[in-house]
Amino acid sequence: MTQMKLAVLGCGLIGVSWTALFLAHGHDVMVWDPDPAARNSLADKSALPLAQLAELGQGDVHRRGRLTVCAEPEDAVQGVDLVQENAPEKVPLKRALYARVEVAAPAGAIIASSTSSLVWSDLAEDMTYPGRFVTAHPFNPPHLMPLVELYGRDPVTVQRAESFYRDLGRETVRLRRDAVGHIANRLASALWREAVNIVAEGIADVSEVDAALVHGPGLRWSVVGAHMAYHLGGGPGGMAHYLSHLGPSQERRWSTLGIPRLTPEVCDLLIAGVDMEAAGRSVAELEASRDAGLIAALKARNVA
Amino acid sequence: MTQMKLAVLGCGLIGVSWTALFLAHGHDVMVWDPDPAARNSLADKSALPLAQLAELGQGDVHRRGRLTVCAEPEDAVQGVDLVQENAPEKVPLKRALYARVEVAAPAGAIIASSTSSLVWSDLAEDMTYPGRFVTAHPFNPPHLMPLVELYGRDPVTVQRAESFYRDLGRETVRLRRDAVGHIANRLASALWREAVNIVAEGIADVSEVDAALVHGPGLRWSVVGAHMAYHLGGGPGGMAHYLSHLGPSQERRWSTLGIPRLTPEVCDLLIAGVDMEAAGRSVAELEASRDAGLIAALKARNVA
Repeated sequence: MTQMKLAVLGCGLIGVSWTALFLAHGHDVMVWDPDPAARNSLADKSALPLAQLAELGQGDVHRRGRLTVCAEPEDAVQGVDLVQENAPEKVPLKRALYARVEVAAPAGAIIASSTSSLVWSDLAEDMTYPGRFVTAHPFNPPHLMPLVELYGRDPVTVQRAESFYRDLGRETVRLRRDAVGHIANRLASALWREAVNIVAEGIADVSEVDAALVHGPGLRWSVVGAHMAYHLGGGPGGMAHYLSHLGPSQERRWSTLGIPRLTPEVCDLLIAGVDMEAAGRSVAELEASRDAGLIAALKARNVA
Repeated sequence: MTQMKLAVLGCGLIGVSWTALFLAHGHDVMVWDPDPAARNSLADKSALPLAQLAELGQGDVHRRGRLTVCAEPEDAVQGVDLVQENAPEKVPLKRALYARVEVAAPAGAIIASSTSSLVWSDLAEDMTYPGRFVTAHPFNPPHLMPLVELYGRDPVTVQRAESFYRDLGRETVRLRRDAVGHIANRLASALWREAVNIVAEGIADVSEVDAALVHGPGLRWSVVGAHMAYHLGGGPGGMAHYLSHLGPSQERRWSTLGIPRLTPEVCDLLIAGVDMEAAGRSVAELEASRDAGLIAALKARNVA
C-alpha cells in the first residue's frame, strides 16, 4: 500500500484508535484537538491499540508511520490525502471545522467524518466542495472492529474512500441514502430497545439478557447476517420459503415487542443489573476483557 | 459426568442436533418420530454434527452413547432421566404428546420442550405433574450454539435441568417469567424488523445490512451483551453516565425506527437481496460455511 499523509481531528477514544490503525499501516498522521492535553497525550494512548494491532498482525511494526501533533487544524491538514474528523456530535461545531479544513487542505483530499448520529446532508450543507465529503462511521473501537459505514454523493470519492479503508483491513458497507444511525446503530438501537423492554417487563435480568445474546444471536450474527440467517432458516427453499411460511408469525411477533421508556425506575434496573453483571470489575477491566475477546474472534476469522 | 438415558421426540433438524450432542457426551438416546423415515435416518444425519463436536473437543469420541430408534413415544421414554421434545410448534399436538409421555416416563424424569414460539403456561396446561416440565429452548444448531433458555415453575426441576445442559457445555439462561420468543428470539425479531425496514426504506441493500451486522454489532455481541456494551460506552461512569447523557438520544432514535410490513414488494426485495448475497451458493453450502465460522468462533472462545 502507498504510504499516505493523513489528518486526525479530535483526539478522543475514536481519534486515538484511528491514529493507531493509520500508523500501524505505515501512514504518517498529523493530529489535532482543541484540548492540548488531549492531543499531547495521544502518543501515549496509542501504545495499547498499536500493541493490539501488532498482535493481530495488522500492518508492519517495522514500518510504522510518523505522528505529528499540531496546534491548529489548518496545520494538521497541510498536504494530506484524507482527513478523519472525530469532533463532538454537534452540527455547527463540525460545520465550522470543515470551513477551516476546506481552505487549508489540498483540493484532492477526502474529508471523512466518523459521525455516528449525524447525517451527510446536514454536515455537508455549507461546504464549498461537498463532493469530497463522506461519512465514514467506524464501530468502537475502530482499530479492532472491522466495520466502516460509508456514505457520500460523489461516486469517485466514495470509491476512493472505500479503497482506503479496505487497505487498512476494514470491512466497508455503503449506504444508498444517508440515514440517522447509518445501518449498524439502527440495528443496535432496535435490539437494545427490546433488551430494555425484557428487563422492564420482568421477563429476565440484565445479565441473563446479555448472556442470551452473547451465546445465541450475537454469536450467530458474528458469522452470518440477520437476513442470511432467515434464508438458512427456510431450509432448501431459503428466504422465499421462510417468508411464505413464517413471515406472518414474524409480523405477529413484531407486534408483541415492547416500546419501553427510560424512566428512572427502568434506569435503576439497568444500572443495578449491569453492576451485578460486572461483578466488581471496573469499566477498564471490562474493556480489556472485551478487547481480548474481540482479538480472539478476529484471529479466528483469519483461520475459518 | 454420569451417563444418562435420554429420549429425543421429534427427529427434525433440532432433534438430530440434540441427539448428536447427547451421544457425544456419552448419554444413551432413545429417539422417536411419527415418520419412520425421519427416525430411521437419524443415525446417518447425526454423523456430521458428531464429527463437528469431535472437532470442538466436545465429549469423548471413545465413549459415545448408544442410539435406539423407537416406534412409539412410550417406548422412547422408558426409564429415561430427561425427555427432549422437538415436535412441531402446535399446542394441541404437544399437549397430546405430553399426555402419552407422562404416563410412560419415570416419575422423576424431566420433560423439556425445545419450543421456540410457545410458552410454558400454554404447554403445561393439561399436565398431571407440570412441575417436571420445562421449556429448554436451544438456538439452531443446538450442538454448536451454546445457548439454552430455561423456564419452569419448580425451582428444583429448573436447577436439575440447568446442571444437565451445563454439563453438556451449554450456556443456560433463566427467564423470570415465560414470554413468547423467550429472550433471544425477541431480540432477534426486534433487530430483524429494523433490518427489513432498512431494506424497505432503501437505506441499504440486504447484503450491506448483513455485512454491517457481521463486522459491527454482531461481532461485538459475540463478546459482550447489549447492556454491557452501553455500560462500556459510558466510559468510567458506565451505564449511569450513559443513560443520563445519551438516554434521551436513544429514546429519540427508537422513535425513528421503522415498522415495516412484509408486503409482496418487500418480500421480493429480501428474496432478491439474499439471492445476490448468496452469489450462487446453495443453502447447504451456506450452512457449511456458517458451521465452519461458528466452529472457529467457538474454538477462539476457549483460548480467549
